[in-house]
Amino acid sequence: MISPKKYAKAAKVSPNGFKTTNEFFNYVFKDEEMIWMGQNTNHLHDHSEIAEAMIDCINEGNYCKYPPPEGFPELKELVVRDLGLGDGFEALITAGGTESLYLCMNDILEPEDNAITCDPGYLIIDNFASRFACSVISIPIYSRECGYKLTPELVLENMDRNTHMVSLIDPLNPLGSSYTKDEIKAFADIANDHDIYLLHDITYRDFAMDHHLAADYAPEKTVTVYSFSKIYGMAGLRIGAIVATSDLIESIKSIVINDLGTNVISQAGAIAALRSKNRWVDRIRNTTFRNQKIIKDAVDEVDGAFIPVYPSSGNMMAIDIHKTGVDPLDLADYLLKRKIFVRQGAYTSRAFGDRYIRLSFSIPREQVEIFAENFVDVMEFLRPSN
Amino acid sequence: MISPKKYAKAAKVSPNGFKTTNEFFNYVFKDEEMIWMGQNTNHLHDHSEIAEAMIDCINEGNYCKYPPPEGFPELKELVVRDLGLGDGFEALITAGGTESLYLCMNDILEPEDNAITCDPGYLIIDNFASRFACSVISIPIYSRECGYKLTPELVLENMDRNTHMVSLIDPLNPLGSSYTKDEIKAFADIANDHDIYLLHDITYRDFAMDHHLAADYAPEKTVTVYSFSKIYGMAGLRIGAIVATSDLIESIKSIVINDLGTNVISQAGAIAALRSKNRWVDRIRNTTFRNQKIIKDAVDEVDGAFIPVYPSSGNMMAIDIHKTGVDPLDLADYLLKRKIFVRQGAYTSRAFGDRYIRLSFSIPREQVEIFAENFVDVMEFLRPSN
Ligand SMILES: Cc1ncc(COP(=O)(O)O)c(C=O)c1O
Ligand SMILES: Cc1ncc(COP(=O)(O)O)c(C=O)c1O
Repeated sequence: MISPKKYAKAAKVSPNGFKTTNEFFNYVFKDEEMIWMGQNTNHLHDHSEIAEAMIDCINEGNYCKYPPPEGFPELKELVVRDLGLGDGFEALITAGGTESLYLCMNDILEPEDNAITCDPGYLIIDNFASRFACSVISIPIYSRECGYKLTPELVLENMDRNTHMVSLIDPLNPLGSSYTKDEIKAFADIANDHDIYLLHDITYRDFAMDHHLAADYAPEKTVTVYSFSKIYGMAGLRIGAIVATSDLIESIKSIVINDLGTNVISQAGAIAALRSKNRWVDRIRNTTFRNQKIIKDAVDEVDGAFIPVYPSSGNMMAIDIHKTGVDPLDLADYLLKRKIFVRQGAYTSRAFGDRYIRLSFSIPREQVEIFAENFVDVMEFLRPSN
Repeated sequence: MISPKKYAKAAKVSPNGFKTTNEFFNYVFKDEEMIWMGQNTNHLHDHSEIAEAMIDCINEGNYCKYPPPEGFPELKELVVRDLGLGDGFEALITAGGTESLYLCMNDILEPEDNAITCDPGYLIIDNFASRFACSVISIPIYSRECGYKLTPELVLENMDRNTHMVSLIDPLNPLGSSYTKDEIKAFADIANDHDIYLLHDITYRDFAMDHHLAADYAPEKTVTVYSFSKIYGMAGLRIGAIVATSDLIESIKSIVINDLGTNVISQAGAIAALRSKNRWVDRIRNTTFRNQKIIKDAVDEVDGAFIPVYPSSGNMMAIDIHKTGVDPLDLADYLLKRKIFVRQGAYTSRAFGDRYIRLSFSIPREQVEIFAENFVDVMEFLRPSN
């Protein structure tokens, strides 16, 4: 078993010049002028219904009690219904997609197993998988040939008889690629035929114009990881879910960590978010989608820079600056000095981290325009003269 | 390694007649008339400062961002200061004492180790320890001879060279026993001499009239588990901490699960709670302590019933009803029908669960009086006639 500590060390990224990563994040959090493009968070909510529900919850004073351990039944049902999944599916409420990912790995992976992930990808998935499996097969997908995503062919080529899980981040953080219905069906076939679980991480689902659930095609073999951090604009409230068949959920319950439940205020907010979703989701999705064009135009102005996946199906994208000779870390540092928070590639890739920055754009249009201007400017400044 | 699933099954308790435990808890949570004596929660706050700070936090709208992963620096410092621990100690903010316990086990225990706990005790500790250690030695302490708690002698008798952790719940859930300064010093000596870690769970510390930190005597060998659920009245907000030397905290950081931090609203509430603590802590501690006398008088009326540890140093106690012939489960069920929520012993003991009920009393005095009346009444009704 790979030591999780070794993994954590490898995944460590520069705290952008601060003494500790924690102090860096505290600085970014507290600075009201900072333009947040660094964590795929969503700053487009006016939050009326969600905030109101949470304030009501505080005023009711029930937060001195423990909530039901698996989540309020109303919220559990709303999550399943949001996905349009029918009878036989159940949601377990968690303190975020992160906790969901950990619990899925803990439940599904055994010491002799391996898990397939992709690079670039969301590295905590590899870290968690490595804590329970024998090894993690991280398939390089940073190329036009495979469409900057896993393909059923790549999975078939790389799997062996110990492969017990394939992680599908869909849309993919950091690139914004996503899977077609046919691809999802092909992954489902692999899962059904080879007794492999699909970890379908749909954290960015609602930003996509088109999205397909693996749970529809391999219901018994899919765990769906759900988050309230992105489209719902609730990242700081730490709430998410696992959705799967009741049998799978039953198994996961037996290895649960927080057996005293998930924050009651967050749950009240999540219920309000789901109940009000149809009133705001199109506005947020469309604003986010249109913001991409502003970034695209700026990138097109910079010789040697390009966007691997355009348009992105998520609220984030990568900008490849490899050919410009600029180090993504320097670019992130310089933008931060101008109060624009983006992420160097190393945060989401071991193999290709020196090629790109990742940035999210579910933020007000004016802020995206400020980024666009500064990106062109800083790139010009940092480009090595020859 | 004992399968955590087997453990979870063994610890399962009747959901008091409901289809699932989750539905039972949902029912109890939603029923505004229910008298909460079943989860050691604290219903004595007027919550002015804490609620206000949380509402301000919502109105600031920053909950769309991720907080710094280890907790806001201000909160980290306030927690360390609350314990009066000096330089060299650090707090890691978590989603509750429960998550703290899990992370400590994960960091400290290796597959060849064993851990010492006590029975009665807080069973999730045994469950978590069993996920990482080879075995858990649960020492029976339900007797007057040992004072209804672990003793240094019991630890020395039961440990072997694979013992790597001793769990000290102090005050002890469910009995309310706590450790003297000399006992804590003796445990610290054992830890220092034998390279054993003390897991000092101080969830109920502030209810005790006198309390001593193992961290003061075995700083390098103690992890202190801190919770905002009890004295602070914030159980539903799922927030806690681990306090230890920076070296130990550094090691724990590398196996952290929620690397995206803890709920920002809960953290705002926790900061306000610590800042305002000296204005309310005596009132809550004293009301809680005095409520015990009402229960004691009622128990004294019931032939064969007794309180093993009186007065309790926590906000909970056990009432032993073994000699009365009444089943604790029946008693809990009947009280629940009268809208009084208490816990059968099986929730906190494998060996002695058929002897007692556990109940907490950090609730308004009038509610304790209702319990007292009903306890005498229901016991009379349930007592087998001979
Ligand atoms: C792919 C992916 N999964 C899960 C998460 C975790 O989300 P949460 O905030 O719900 O823990 C993220 C967060 O960025 C993510 O990008
Ligand atoms: C001894 C003990 N430790 C830890 C906890 C967990 O507390 P939290 O709500 O902070 O997870 C409890 C809760 O009842 C407890 O009794």
